[in-house]
Amino acid sequence: MLELYGGVEGGGTKSTVVIVAANGTIMSNIDGPATNHWLVGMDRCLESINNMVQEAKKAAKADPNVPLKSLGLTLSGGEQEEAINKMIQQLKVRFPKLSENYCITTDAIGGILTATDAGGIVLISGTGSNCKLVNPDGSEIGCGGWGHLMGDEGSAYWIAHLAMKTVFDAIDNYKPTSFSIRLVEEAMYDYFQVSKRMGILTHLYRTFEKSKIAGFCQTLAEVAVAGDHLSRHIFTRAGQELAWHVAAVLPQADKKLHEGELGLTIVCVGSVWNSWNLLKDGFVEVLQEAKQKPMGRDLKKVTLMKLKRSSALGASKLGARHVGYDLPMNYADNIDIFFEHCFSP
Amino acid sequence: MLELYGGVEGGGTKSTVVIVAANGTIMSNIDGPATNHWLVGMDRCLESINNMVQEAKKAAKADPNVPLKSLGLTLSGGEQEEAINKMIQQLKVRFPKLSENYCITTDAIGGILTATDAGGIVLISGTGSNCKLVNPDGSEIGCGGWGHLMGDEGSAYWIAHLAMKTVFDAIDNYKPTSFSIRLVEEAMYDYFQVSKRMGILTHLYRTFEKSKIAGFCQTLAEVAVAGDHLSRHIFTRAGQELAWHVAAVLPQADKKLHEGELGLTIVCVGSVWNSWNLLKDGFVEVLQEAKQKPMGRDLKKVTLMKLKRSSALGASKLGARHVGYDLPMNYADNIDIFFEHCFSP
Repeated sequence: MLELYGGVEGGGTKSTVVIVAANGTIMSNIDGPATNHWLVGMDRCLESINNMVQEAKKAAKADPNVPLKSLGLTLSGGEQEEAINKMIQQLKVRFPKLSENYCITTDAIGGILTATDAGGIVLISGTGSNCKLVNPDGSEIGCGGWGHLMGDEGSAYWIAHLAMKTVFDAIDNYKPTSFSIRLVEEAMYDYFQVSKRMGILTHLYRTFEKSKIAGFCQTLAEVAVAGDHLSRHIFTRAGQELAWHVAAVLPQADKKLHEGELGLTIVCVGSVWNSWNLLKDGFVEVLQEAKQKPMGRDLKKVTLMKLKRSSALGASKLGARHVGYDLPMNYADNIDIFFEHCFSP
Repeated sequence: MLELYGGVEGGGTKSTVVIVAANGTIMSNIDGPATNHWLVGMDRCLESINNMVQEAKKAAKADPNVPLKSLGLTLSGGEQEEAINKMIQQLKVRFPKLSENYCITTDAIGGILTATDAGGIVLISGTGSNCKLVNPDGSEIGCGGWGHLMGDEGSAYWIAHLAMKTVFDAIDNYKPTSFSIRLVEEAMYDYFQVSKRMGILTHLYRTFEKSKIAGFCQTLAEVAVAGDHLSRHIFTRAGQELAWHVAAVLPQADKKLHEGELGLTIVCVGSVWNSWNLLKDGFVEVLQEAKQKPMGRDLKKVTLMKLKRSSALGASKLGARHVGYDLPMNYADNIDIFFEHCFSP
């Protein structure tokens, strides 16, 4: 019988599960609901994981009653040791047929392991944001990932929020902006289906859903592509914020990370990267500045890539590694390089 | 039998009720729980109001079964017309013995009416922040008051959050600060009873209470008074933010507001004003700058005052006015002037 390894990519908006055979073949790949335990609560998170994995086993034509060899999970909000141990404990007790072994890490590690085993940076900008440097020796340095109340700079939530805040402040004559707010203001009322600022408060407080606020970012991208200056400015600001995450971890990067053909690998995860053209100027500007400082000394080239496949794959690799098995993976099949930039010395 | 008028000052942390006789005598004054319907929900908010007012009637040796002539309420979050109408409707239906008439406005109006009937600015910095200019003709111009997700600059929540964010970012090497974070970091772990940043996330997300976060501001004030540079800097920043609220509404101020002996009256409400010495430099600096601009042309003098009595009194005045009665009030008994500043022309 086939030995199967599972991987889960948990996010604040949706989740993905893959089932991989020991030879590296992807047997099934399914999507499901949000599994960020900070947002949906631990119980709902665990149940969603079990439901998705059992469904994925069936899709892989495997017996759902036979546990996987291992299940690797990369979850946003998955770095608090105590919560993770409790989570694994509960998965074992409540769902004995799910998997023989578990390994949970952050969404960042899942992303990098899907793209390369040589290390690099994973820079997430989806509903939230996060940055993790993984050195060749496996050591990790993080920046961000603290959620919408303490960070998430450059994320869809942050972009949407900055746009809304700029409109609120301009109308209040509090820190007025030099840009016209008209198109962003209209888009905001339209997206939230309200007629004035007061109506937004319900979405911010009574019925708060991070993903609902973050969803406004998509509308803003359309407004920006159509030429609106304020929203273009906000995406440029987001590009800067994302690059500042890279600059923050740069001093801890092993020299080897700069030496390959691709230079420093940056795995870009999350839907905000679909608006790369809007982010680019701010992003490159900040890295150029970092290059001039001691921390950027070793910077020669950066290569930005997206994952063509879910970082649930990296999670399955991690889970397998956790039980001593090196799951084969053809990294080139998993990535899409979308930007390369060489720095002048 | 005595005709009684009631006033409620609702806040994000605590509330106050006064019962006032037709001759202006304060018959009773009691404190109770938070009554911000955005934070505690409408049901709990209404029940708390009823419980407090009935208790206050008893304390005034009045029959709780006899409705007040009017009940004025100043509530943070009390400017959304639809929510207010619903609230009044529910108070009438659920608590027929509470009051004959109701009038709800923001905490800002309650504050100004407790200090003066000539108009001025009320600048709230408690758990949240808000600014309202009231012109002599009764017209109102607001700035802020959008809650912790969209404003609250210069409030206890904002000060606590900025301190926490500065520590988080410094440890991440993300936008490092030139100040030492040591004392603020220690105070933060101590206040939240955690050992590292991860532990803070529970307070920010799973068990989020705005007043719990805001409560850290008190600790920071102590750290600042003891000489810590980072926390002193943060309070100076808060002073700037609060003054920016004043600058935002200044262009709409009637000239008459500048012409009295006290100049522009600023009624300062909320516990953050207890740290005035820490706010002062930032506050005055921003108003000096505003004076140089066209919007500050008429600025001659500002007088900052605190209320010695709850703005529930102003609320009772408002409620009485709503049923056509001019409740006598000795304003001088209600205020405490703590700062006067004349601007050079």
